Amino acid sequence: MATVAILAVGDELTTGQKIDTNSAWLSGRLLERGIETVEHATVADDPGAIGAAIVRLARAVDLVIVTGGLGPTADDLTRQGLAIAMGGGATGAAGEAVELVEDEAALAAIRRWFEWSGRPMPETNRMQALRPRGAVCLENRFGTAPGLQAQIAHERGCGGSHEGGRNGGRAETLVFCLPGPPREMRPMFEASVLPELPAPDRAIVARLVHAFGAGESHVAELLGDLMDRDRNPLVGTTASGGIITCRMRAEFDSAEAAERALDETERAVRERLGDLVFGAGDDTLESVVIDLLRARKQTLATVESCTGGLLGASLTEIAGSGDIYGGGWVTYTNEMKTAEVGVPRVMLEQHGAVSREVAEAMARGGRAASGADWAVGITGIAGPGGGSDAKPVGTVWIGVAGPERMDVRRFVIPGGREDVRQWSVRSALGMVRLGLIGVEMELLREAE
Amino acid sequence: MATVAILAVGDELTTGQKIDTNSAWLSGRLLERGIETVEHATVADDPGAIGAAIVRLARAVDLVIVTGGLGPTADDLTRQGLAIAMGGGATGAAGEAVELVEDEAALAAIRRWFEWSGRPMPETNRMQALRPRGAVCLENRFGTAPGLQAQIAHERGCGGSHEGGRNGGRAETLVFCLPGPPREMRPMFEASVLPELPAPDRAIVARLVHAFGAGESHVAELLGDLMDRDRNPLVGTTASGGIITCRMRAEFDSAEAAERALDETERAVRERLGDLVFGAGDDTLESVVIDLLRARKQTLATVESCTGGLLGASLTEIAGSGDIYGGGWVTYTNEMKTAEVGVPRVMLEQHGAVSREVAEAMARGGRAASGADWAVGITGIAGPGGGSDAKPVGTVWIGVAGPERMDVRRFVIPGGREDVRQWSVRSALGMVRLGLIGVEMELLREAE
Repeated sequence: MATVAILAVGDELTTGQKIDTNSAWLSGRLLERGIETVEHATVADDPGAIGAAIVRLARAVDLVIVTGGLGPTADDLTRQGLAIAMGGGATGAAGEAVELVEDEAALAAIRRWFEWSGRPMPETNRMQALRPRGAVCLENRFGTAPGLQAQIAHERGCGGSHEGGRNGGRAETLVFCLPGPPREMRPMFEASVLPELPAPDRAIVARLVHAFGAGESHVAELLGDLMDRDRNPLVGTTASGGIITCRMRAEFDSAEAAERALDETERAVRERLGDLVFGAGDDTLESVVIDLLRARKQTLATVESCTGGLLGASLTEIAGSGDIYGGGWVTYTNEMKTAEVGVPRVMLEQHGAVSREVAEAMARGGRAASGADWAVGITGIAGPGGGSDAKPVGTVWIGVAGPERMDVRRFVIPGGREDVRQWSVRSALGMVRLGLIGVEMELLREAE
Repeated sequence: MATVAILAVGDELTTGQKIDTNSAWLSGRLLERGIETVEHATVADDPGAIGAAIVRLARAVDLVIVTGGLGPTADDLTRQGLAIAMGGGATGAAGEAVELVEDEAALAAIRRWFEWSGRPMPETNRMQALRPRGAVCLENRFGTAPGLQAQIAHERGCGGSHEGGRNGGRAETLVFCLPGPPREMRPMFEASVLPELPAPDRAIVARLVHAFGAGESHVAELLGDLMDRDRNPLVGTTASGGIITCRMRAEFDSAEAAERALDETERAVRERLGDLVFGAGDDTLESVVIDLLRARKQTLATVESCTGGLLGASLTEIAGSGDIYGGGWVTYTNEMKTAEVGVPRVMLEQHGAVSREVAEAMARGGRAASGADWAVGITGIAGPGGGSDAKPVGTVWIGVAGPERMDVRRFVIPGGREDVRQWSVRSALGMVRLGLIGVEMELLREAE
């Protein structure tokens, strides 16, 4: 199996101001291609440290990917670090850096970027067209920083910690430098790095099945022996925001054999999890709910209190959902609840804003005011303040009003303010889904 | 300045299933104590790789902190990795691992943990009481995994990449191994690691100043020589979602001298960036807008089309904002724009939903319908479809209606759907802020 090491560059990472998400994303994408990540490393904006890390990692793996440090400011120093690595690569000792030269095509692309955006190009952006002599610039379609591709020559097996069974001797390792912002880095990886990677010697195929409505350990219990660690396809679970994703990964001699084995495993997973499974692959709860509504030619409206617009924002993450989701209300205060969706003032006084009655009235009122087929009302205590013994922080009432049913449920969601809000959105979508497919709400256990 | 390297351990990290947040948290806490993080590294659950990484890092820094791999299952192998590092530490070559012994006090603590939780102790948890001979167990008050503390003896300066001006010769590096879950790791760091750290010989103080309304390279141009790499305080910038953060870091003999130098540098930064600066430290655009409104005893309402509730969700991320932000509307369709905030149907037909006229009408209508002092209307084409030559994807009109002014601006935002939406939210908040402080909108350049 080919190996990769990923190096993230930036003072904002080593000082703890920012969390590196690029390395995890790259590792996931590479694993799908049958390439194993043996190390993530992060160093500061220091060309010597960057160069030394590239050389060290290049000795130990087949491929090094560097992210960050390609911006237009004086503390963007990955270009210089790569030049040092390319200079010292032959001996492994820190040699002289290779020269930085201006890449004409890259400079022209940066100029075009500014022309397109109708602004003059600041002189500082010119440095982004620099590349170490011998390196190649990679096109950036979503920003000004070109990527870089180079070969580092080095002696194998002199100090790296991951040599495994490798022999010593001269070798070359491919190095890619990509910009730090994920929206620039990811498309550049897909366009410029993936096509350069060696074809895997074994077919590795992965699939995802998504479940919602139970905790991860309950899902693991239902899956049972399907999760044995020596199984092929291998089945694992990850939990994120209440959604439990089952990853299935098959490794076979041919893609056909892998797909056949995955078909069988996926069938078994779906059988054991039943209606908890809401989708596969790129499906999200939002996309599944919108697809179900579209198939029924029905529409949805939202009335949000503690989530403050987060459910509407989630539904409109999906382009072209305007025929299904027309909009709704953020009724953060009692006044808005009364004025906009007709929650009676006396009900708010008697039961409090966070109550079964108010959640139901919000959903019914939103349905009536919008004319939509379905409406959701969410009211809860996201914290950190506002809780009581009877209604602790995390208490959320969700009402779903549909053409033929009215469901109201209480959740007590653990975690901080953002956890409570995110989980409320997922739970509301989960309730709408169960309403649409005609399943009892009892399935929706409080997630762990 | 004392130096630290942080090693995260776990297959879930190197395969990209989970993002490491511990290293950033530790770096931030250590920096406050004047200890500089020179590297983050992450390796899989492999005792050889863990041991080699500990030895490599120990040679280069004064302190190594390891997180993860202390659980009760077969793939928790940090104890074994530390034993290998302690065995091979004297020569730097991979020697024999030191013996693992059962720690009586640690075993008693694990037994107490299970007694307290009323469950029998599974036999697998017994392995958590193992420690390399010569290492010390650290108490875990929030879980079953004790931490470990050890000294690694090694030769300085033989292969590490961060020696700087160090001399060679024998040295000892302190190593701490902490559990992976943040809610166990963080209190253990505070209780067991912090008291063992050397008092800082130099005072290091950091500050942040946040700007919005210009691109990173424009901000860098304005900062000019303040960003020189050999300056003390050192000034750097990072961009995230259109917000440019200036990091200032001072290193002096005393905290007073550092604070004085930072006062001067912050004054210079604010002077050069002028009204682009919206806050410092933990301030966000949302918190600053809410604070400005609160100081004026004014309120805000939102009317969102392409952002679908994202602005409301951002404002309600801040707890206790209900006195300022009462809510608003998600008017995703033309029908909702007309029905809820009175945008004339003929205006929608004549100018289209994405137009100066409609943005203004949404803001004015939202202000009238809510009775709030300020209202924001956002209408745009978030893509990927729906664009035209005259109104390309990314075209967003934002209207801000206030007690004494009405501002409407067009933005053409690059990137994907989520970029356009997020940037629209920031731009709307930026416009409200400029309205509140009475500054001309011209300041708000389109960000890169």
